[in-house]
Amino acid sequence: MSRPKLLALLCLAVVCAPARAVEPPPLAIAIHGGAGVIDPAKMTPQHAASYRAGLAAALDAGYAILEHGGSSLDAVTAAVRIMEDDPQFNAGRGAVLNHDGDAELDAAIMDGHGPRAGAVAGVRRVRNPIELARLVMEKSPHVLLVAEGAEEFALEQGVALVPREYFRTEARVRELEEARRQAGELKAAAPGPTGTVGAVALDGAGHLAAATSTGGLTDKHRGRVGDSPIVGAGTYADDDSCAVSGTGQGEFFIRQVVAFDICALVLYRHLTLAQAVHEVIRKLRHTGGEGGVIAVDRAGNIAMDFNSVGMFRGARDSRGRRDIAMYRDAQ
Amino acid sequence: MSRPKLLALLCLAVVCAPARAVEPPPLAIAIHGGAGVIDPAKMTPQHAASYRAGLAAALDAGYAILEHGGSSLDAVTAAVRIMEDDPQFNAGRGAVLNHDGDAELDAAIMDGHGPRAGAVAGVRRVRNPIELARLVMEKSPHVLLVAEGAEEFALEQGVALVPREYFRTEARVRELEEARRQAGELKAAAPGPTGTVGAVALDGAGHLAAATSTGGLTDKHRGRVGDSPIVGAGTYADDDSCAVSGTGQGEFFIRQVVAFDICALVLYRHLTLAQAVHEVIRKLRHTGGEGGVIAVDRAGNIAMDFNSVGMFRGARDSRGRRDIAMYRDAQ
Repeated sequence: MSRPKLLALLCLAVVCAPARAVEPPPLAIAIHGGAGVIDPAKMTPQHAASYRAGLAAALDAGYAILEHGGSSLDAVTAAVRIMEDDPQFNAGRGAVLNHDGDAELDAAIMDGHGPRAGAVAGVRRVRNPIELARLVMEKSPHVLLVAEGAEEFALEQGVALVPREYFRTEARVRELEEARRQAGELKAAAPGPTGTVGAVALDGAGHLAAATSTGGLTDKHRGRVGDSPIVGAGTYADDDSCAVSGTGQGEFFIRQVVAFDICALVLYRHLTLAQAVHEVIRKLRHTGGEGGVIAVDRAGNIAMDFNSVGMFRGARDSRGRRDIAMYRDAQ
Repeated sequence: MSRPKLLALLCLAVVCAPARAVEPPPLAIAIHGGAGVIDPAKMTPQHAASYRAGLAAALDAGYAILEHGGSSLDAVTAAVRIMEDDPQFNAGRGAVLNHDGDAELDAAIMDGHGPRAGAVAGVRRVRNPIELARLVMEKSPHVLLVAEGAEEFALEQGVALVPREYFRTEARVRELEEARRQAGELKAAAPGPTGTVGAVALDGAGHLAAATSTGGLTDKHRGRVGDSPIVGAGTYADDDSCAVSGTGQGEFFIRQVVAFDICALVLYRHLTLAQAVHEVIRKLRHTGGEGGVIAVDRAGNIAMDFNSVGMFRGARDSRGRRDIAMYRDAQ
């Protein structure tokens, strides 16, 4: 090759390099609105359309934040807050009621950049537990505040408490009455799946985040805390590996440290995200636990899996994917 | 070799084989009584002797159970209960006081066989939180109960509550007053190390168990929960890998999922227990966290490490080891 030609090629390479460098980084968000509670026989077309609309609102609000250069932390906060405000989902308003007839709410948020985390459990008068979890992360030296101490912290932070009545919907009161009528003892021995909500996201700066919020189990014992607010169990994010939010029988998720286990399999055994999620759901089935997870990694890969009848879920990314589904066949 | 000689040798081999097979399985227990709080300058010989006696009582009581064929679960329960009842340690009676002047207690227990787990957090009137954690594991379908709901469960199980005054010792009241006098704001921003207690053990049936109990941080916000009652963070046990109990700045342990991470490094990266503990303490130092862990694996190896000035600790096994130590030089 002649010298001038070589020079010309080198110049071309220099000119082209920045063009490759500014290729936009991947963006991705996934959400869930609970697993295992979806009986296809009882799901009317109206119900299905309404759930799908609720999921779409949360998914698109979260994605819009990512698309406008916002953080994954803001995206998962927004997505979860929307589902907390939607009484269809078991979180915030419309959360299931405990044995005393109260909603008792748990939530956690984790920023993979740090990582940092905040969580609250057993709060009864906080409209958006996910926002309080975020305040714990950002405004306190702590990770987890529970019960009245968490509500005290809310007031200290200028968060107005709402009356307990705010959370109680007619549908949840009926569910509680039915649960009490049905073999209460049996139910207590084998807690059923839940309709927890959650979100995971990757933003343009390469940061991962996860958020989960729930009312837990219908007719649960006062003070019972599930996996949602437990870092490593129902919620986990680390920029070095992945972000995970779970939904299902919380006690199984806690004992298996499900969310962190997925990230450990990615980090230590170099599984792909999909393989890690698959492996952990397999282990869950093996122990008799039911539920599902959503996860995203630093490359923007989304993995969603469950061993229950269905899992309300949605996924959207910068490669053009936008899915909302309820059952196994991605419908 | 002649035929009769060969036959004689074979017979000998057959006779000797059972002798090898009945070689007793390894037994091991390790305990801690907190990390980081030990200022050698302030530690009088009387104090040191008293702490060592307290540790010895817990260690030997736990080991005696293992030696008599008891379970690792019973051994760690007994060791932790003894330290809860000893006002020198920050757990049970003599626990540090929160901002409101109350002891607010957290505990968890995990049985590697299953695995099964039980935990309580934010209880204020339960004499032995480790026993209540065990009742949660054995008598409820749940893993974690908090605050008043956990105390309600105690009453349902026939556990008498004690007045809050039971926990308040003169020394802890003075500590709280001093903490309040000192820059309270500064302290709140950087929670100091704690004197949590814990135990891990391997029994003759090859089962691992872990238990941790704490009063948390002096002057802590009401409702603040640290790593001790969080499965995977301050407490973890799985017969397939190891059993761990931690002590230190709980928020760091929660974010790093310290206890489960050690077991994941053993299981997924095939590190030895000592290597895994060393790696996790290195990560803890890297994030600015302070504390230590004790761990035991299924072969009866014990690992104890910390990045604080000291860690009250003890170890005993069926190979004849019996150590009690406070500082790095194993003294």
